[in-house]
Amino acid sequence: MTEVGATREWLQELDERRARARAIADEAGCDVLLVFGADRHGQAFRYLTNFEPVLGDMWLLLADQPQCFLTFQWQIEEARRLSGIERWAGRFDPLPLVVDALRETGARRVGIAGLGRMPVPAYRALEQGVPRVDLVALDDEIDRLRRRKSPLEVAALREAAALTDRMLDAARSAVRPGVTEHELVALLTELVLSAGGEPAFEPTVVVGVDEAIPIRRPTGRAIREGDTVMVDLGAAWQGYQADATRTFVLGQPSRAQLDAWDLVRRAYEASLALARPGVPCLELHRVAAEIIEGAGFQLGHRVGHGIGLATSFEWPSLDTETAPLEPGVTICIEPGVYAVGVGNMKLEDDVLITEHGCELLTKSDRTLAVPL
Amino acid sequence: MTEVGATREWLQELDERRARARAIADEAGCDVLLVFGADRHGQAFRYLTNFEPVLGDMWLLLADQPQCFLTFQWQIEEARRLSGIERWAGRFDPLPLVVDALRETGARRVGIAGLGRMPVPAYRALEQGVPRVDLVALDDEIDRLRRRKSPLEVAALREAAALTDRMLDAARSAVRPGVTEHELVALLTELVLSAGGEPAFEPTVVVGVDEAIPIRRPTGRAIREGDTVMVDLGAAWQGYQADATRTFVLGQPSRAQLDAWDLVRRAYEASLALARPGVPCLELHRVAAEIIEGAGFQLGHRVGHGIGLATSFEWPSLDTETAPLEPGVTICIEPGVYAVGVGNMKLEDDVLITEHGCELLTKSDRTLAVPL
Repeated sequence: MTEVGATREWLQELDERRARARAIADEAGCDVLLVFGADRHGQAFRYLTNFEPVLGDMWLLLADQPQCFLTFQWQIEEARRLSGIERWAGRFDPLPLVVDALRETGARRVGIAGLGRMPVPAYRALEQGVPRVDLVALDDEIDRLRRRKSPLEVAALREAAALTDRMLDAARSAVRPGVTEHELVALLTELVLSAGGEPAFEPTVVVGVDEAIPIRRPTGRAIREGDTVMVDLGAAWQGYQADATRTFVLGQPSRAQLDAWDLVRRAYEASLALARPGVPCLELHRVAAEIIEGAGFQLGHRVGHGIGLATSFEWPSLDTETAPLEPGVTICIEPGVYAVGVGNMKLEDDVLITEHGCELLTKSDRTLAVPL
Repeated sequence: MTEVGATREWLQELDERRARARAIADEAGCDVLLVFGADRHGQAFRYLTNFEPVLGDMWLLLADQPQCFLTFQWQIEEARRLSGIERWAGRFDPLPLVVDALRETGARRVGIAGLGRMPVPAYRALEQGVPRVDLVALDDEIDRLRRRKSPLEVAALREAAALTDRMLDAARSAVRPGVTEHELVALLTELVLSAGGEPAFEPTVVVGVDEAIPIRRPTGRAIREGDTVMVDLGAAWQGYQADATRTFVLGQPSRAQLDAWDLVRRAYEASLALARPGVPCLELHRVAAEIIEGAGFQLGHRVGHGIGLATSFEWPSLDTETAPLEPGVTICIEPGVYAVGVGNMKLEDDVLITEHGCELLTKSDRTLAVPL
């Protein structure tokens, strides 16, 4: 698999990313840029450092010399190696360190990225700790840097997608009578962890035909002949997260299952056919929604969203974004039909927008029926 | 295993918890209580609802009729069943719903729990959306409800501890030449998931004697004879999180390994001997720190902390809390020695403070050596 992290290419790209972020702050008339990452919402921080702690908040101060501050000191050696940044400090409450460092820069106008997740007490500490400081929100501008994926990022997403395919293939093989949702989730998680990846999110496995619910926690429910088995999962590789879904029916699918699946496939194909530069994002949602709602089903959720360092929160949200797709944007397309009588039926793949069209990143077998 | 969630006893206890929370708001002169839970930091919300979404923020408005708001609508059926609360709504940006609901109560003085993790934009939306509202921070008062665990909570923690013991026993059996850190983490995660639990946090497995680092991500490093293998993990059961550590040496431990382990055991015993009502929390830290630092080692971290719905962030932090232990408080005790030449050596168990002393919740074999 691709080397993780601290290669020369990665370190060089990180320098370029940080230079672009500084330039954004400069343009906004700011002296420095302060990037905040909340526990589990550290994408902007990770984008600029190649590192995200297992636990706790994170701060990056981009001034003459970059400095980082964490809630815990445990991972600083790893962070230094991956980021190419020398100055790291960790403390259970790192806020006073951040305030001191910011005050020392003498900055009067401070660009802030990550304000959208910054807790109230942290913001107040900055306002009160640095006299006459002007805090300028730059979340949107900094997040925009992440829209088009670089070749290194696409390579990481390809690894994540390949691992995701292996998980989906393993799920197909494991769809046997008596296997429980818990056991399937356990097996798939074991697979991704032993390969050195991570689950991008808690896998969803829903068994049966009597529920219409796109996501719930796994239960002890065991697979029986005729059950619909939906498996929605993703592997993360170096922080980059894939997200894909396959639906299986154990044994011969019923007429209702075949019809619902046909609908899902048609919505998927229609959406995928629009995945190219210049098409407004919400067109991909609209066309799939039309097909599913036209057949009398309720649309359970948006038909897709961006993938990258975040999953559900990555730009673009296909149901609302009016901007056009661009080369280098990565999204998932995931139409589904959820109905009592057929269960949960969803098909989801990850897609890279290319110069003239798109490329599927996840490729695992999409066949519905699993022979008994 | 104990029934999860929606039993009559649980629903009754939840009613009592919410009544106590309302009483706290009343005493502070507030008309209503608004509880915010941030993605992954939803403990106060979970304490009052028995539910935490897989993803997204959560809001509970405790007024005449409790109402909840989530970022996603997927899990509402599950949430309703577990919480005994009827009114739930989910929307990608639930904030306008929260503001509307709050405005409809007509409240002028609003108690807020979870302000410590509330993002700046959410706070501003509340201030601006509800005219002349007075927002009163009640984080400390509401968090204090969680200090003494109820019998139902202790039962959940016992299940978590029993599962944790099974994971530690499995780790001991798996310490064989050639097994990698990734494989160990995968195996232990598979075990807890197939049993219907969850990992309380990403397990830490560190192999070797050449690093002095309490926590890092697993690698492809394989176990060899003479290696120290530290395994720090916990199972979560219904949100309640255990946290325990065992250290193994494959084959005959060296003199240095035996001496370091002896030191860890002495620090652990000294701390455990003070685990009873009336002893100031930081005494447990002080006594262990004295032993480890007295032998010339640096203390890598605090010697313990509370366990419950949170792990690292649960009250009390043993290094700083001056208040005395009380019956019903649950903590972990986790002294460690980290040094090049011996590797990572830590022993950690979960402890329930009882009326006159304490009870160990995790009990897995603490022997250092694993025969080849």
